[in-house]
Amino acid sequence: MAQRLETHVYPVLWHEDHVLLIDQRKLPKEYSVVSISRCEDILTAIASRIVRGGPALGMAAAYGLYLGATTIQTDDRTAFLERLEAIAEQLKSVRPDKANLLWSVDYLVKQVQQSSASVDELKANLLKQAQKIQQEDWEICVAIGKHGLAALPQTPAKLTLYTHCNHGALATSGFGTSLGIVRTAWQESRLEKVIAGETRPWLQGSRLTAWECVQEQIPVTIVTDSMAAHCMKRGMVDAVVVGADRIAVNGDTVNKIGTYALAIAAKAHNLPFLVAAPLSTVDFGLATGDGLDIAQGQGTDVCRLGDTVTCPEDVATYNPLADVTPADLITAIVTEHGAIAPADLANFAQRQA
Amino acid sequence: MAQRLETHVYPVLWHEDHVLLIDQRKLPKEYSVVSISRCEDILTAIASRIVRGGPALGMAAAYGLYLGATTIQTDDRTAFLERLEAIAEQLKSVRPDKANLLWSVDYLVKQVQQSSASVDELKANLLKQAQKIQQEDWEICVAIGKHGLAALPQTPAKLTLYTHCNHGALATSGFGTSLGIVRTAWQESRLEKVIAGETRPWLQGSRLTAWECVQEQIPVTIVTDSMAAHCMKRGMVDAVVVGADRIAVNGDTVNKIGTYALAIAAKAHNLPFLVAAPLSTVDFGLATGDGLDIAQGQGTDVCRLGDTVTCPEDVATYNPLADVTPADLITAIVTEHGAIAPADLANFAQRQA
Repeated sequence: MAQRLETHVYPVLWHEDHVLLIDQRKLPKEYSVVSISRCEDILTAIASRIVRGGPALGMAAAYGLYLGATTIQTDDRTAFLERLEAIAEQLKSVRPDKANLLWSVDYLVKQVQQSSASVDELKANLLKQAQKIQQEDWEICVAIGKHGLAALPQTPAKLTLYTHCNHGALATSGFGTSLGIVRTAWQESRLEKVIAGETRPWLQGSRLTAWECVQEQIPVTIVTDSMAAHCMKRGMVDAVVVGADRIAVNGDTVNKIGTYALAIAAKAHNLPFLVAAPLSTVDFGLATGDGLDIAQGQGTDVCRLGDTVTCPEDVATYNPLADVTPADLITAIVTEHGAIAPADLANFAQRQA
Repeated sequence: MAQRLETHVYPVLWHEDHVLLIDQRKLPKEYSVVSISRCEDILTAIASRIVRGGPALGMAAAYGLYLGATTIQTDDRTAFLERLEAIAEQLKSVRPDKANLLWSVDYLVKQVQQSSASVDELKANLLKQAQKIQQEDWEICVAIGKHGLAALPQTPAKLTLYTHCNHGALATSGFGTSLGIVRTAWQESRLEKVIAGETRPWLQGSRLTAWECVQEQIPVTIVTDSMAAHCMKRGMVDAVVVGADRIAVNGDTVNKIGTYALAIAAKAHNLPFLVAAPLSTVDFGLATGDGLDIAQGQGTDVCRLGDTVTCPEDVATYNPLADVTPADLITAIVTEHGAIAPADLANFAQRQA
């Protein structure tokens, strides 16, 4: 069977004069695309989780800012900038926890602030810049995929990669970070299959990762999160690849809850544990991950799955959204500039900056 | 608040001339008790998982055999025994994977075979023996609880115990093995709380363990299985207590899928990892757990939760029902005769035999 060289999963796509978003809330049951031509509807789409994943949110917000800009009826640069900044604040306030979203909106506003072009030119340029953000994310993910594959073991010829959550096409411009490595391995005929941990409580693994793999005919097997260590012990896994929300200067990595348990299990079985993320994920204000506050999700997420109630009423739950994987459990952090040992991260990032 | 010294959760209870079973399929949404006075209905209850858990199944089958015996219309001992053996075979064929069920049915038949009493006396004796099996299970679990608590750290004064699946009142005569340790700690004012891992895919933790703790006002917090290692790292756990399906002579322990991952995490955090089980769980035909075949559950269990579909259609799944925890990850195996280091298990069991 010929392997596809390009993904067909684009969570955020600019088409003529509007944005197309895959409605990720409905996956995997239903594939539905939402067409949006107003900034207000981008705000709603972000708030209601139609679109998710840091990079994908950054792109959606960038297009949202452009759509908002087109409605500003003035030729006066100062008045335009004032209105644009108000729209930017609105966009940033919907998911203030998402670094990529804040970054892309701030970046676009700064471009406008620093330009001396006319309002019409500024508007046109906003669209170009939004498209450039998307294109650059694609290139970063493809580079991560290439460096990640090079960092994986040479044997066996076909690898089985275990992954967690969804840092895939659906979370980015269409290629993914940890799933970018999986995609590259598949394109290069180095992939036996990907094992996707379902990722309770939100099931991004079984709902989203599995869905995008099925779309591209990448062989995928779903397990519950508690099965990972058993799969490793049975020799079913060659390496673990995960994404990252935030990386401390020493390499400690904040990612979806469950990542830390996987890293401990990988270490116990001497398996490579790769963290895939753009270099921009490194937070130079964060020396280590020690004692970092972890946001809590709603208790009902643990007590419910869809319409099914899984717990007795009013029982206590604990629902940390992320955990911290210490650098010493991480084989390499795979960025667009190469795979870096956590101990080399600080120096490497400084050289690139 | 006065702490209750006796549980109110009895999954199998003999009352006058019939058996009362808690319908465990309906928990935690609905508490419903099924009243059974015919052996056929015991067969159905076992097959349909109204009753579950090795010891509880053993008791239900024992009462089933008695109920079947009462319908045998003969005074001839040989004819009675023949009919009784046929009923015993029926009972054993419903869950042939459950050692406790096979054992209790075989034990009762043997008692009849070896007795010279009249048929009426034999019938009455079957009921007494079934009740004795239940009483002995209670005593075994209480002893496990006592020895387990003694094996736990002396500090802090109030312990937080992490548990997996349900080896509780609902799986036994009403006290539990791993949850017997939790109950004892609670009765002795040594329990801060129990953290119950939800135990995907069947959720025995969030559905059953949480429910029985709520009934007895034992403080319980539910987490998804992937959160256990994070809880340990945050210092939220003082020890892990789990049950066992089968224990090899070297201490390797077969238990619900996810137990192995917990044991690795406990070791990484230097936490005690206790396996609670009657000494009869040790399988002297099994030298180690290496390469043991693990039964697979239905793929739909991984892809579904109640009415909620969690995966794309026709995707591959892997669903091992159990895993093997190597002896070197186990601090002690807590039996009714005491807490035993895995390395001492073979000698200890021989001394008791």
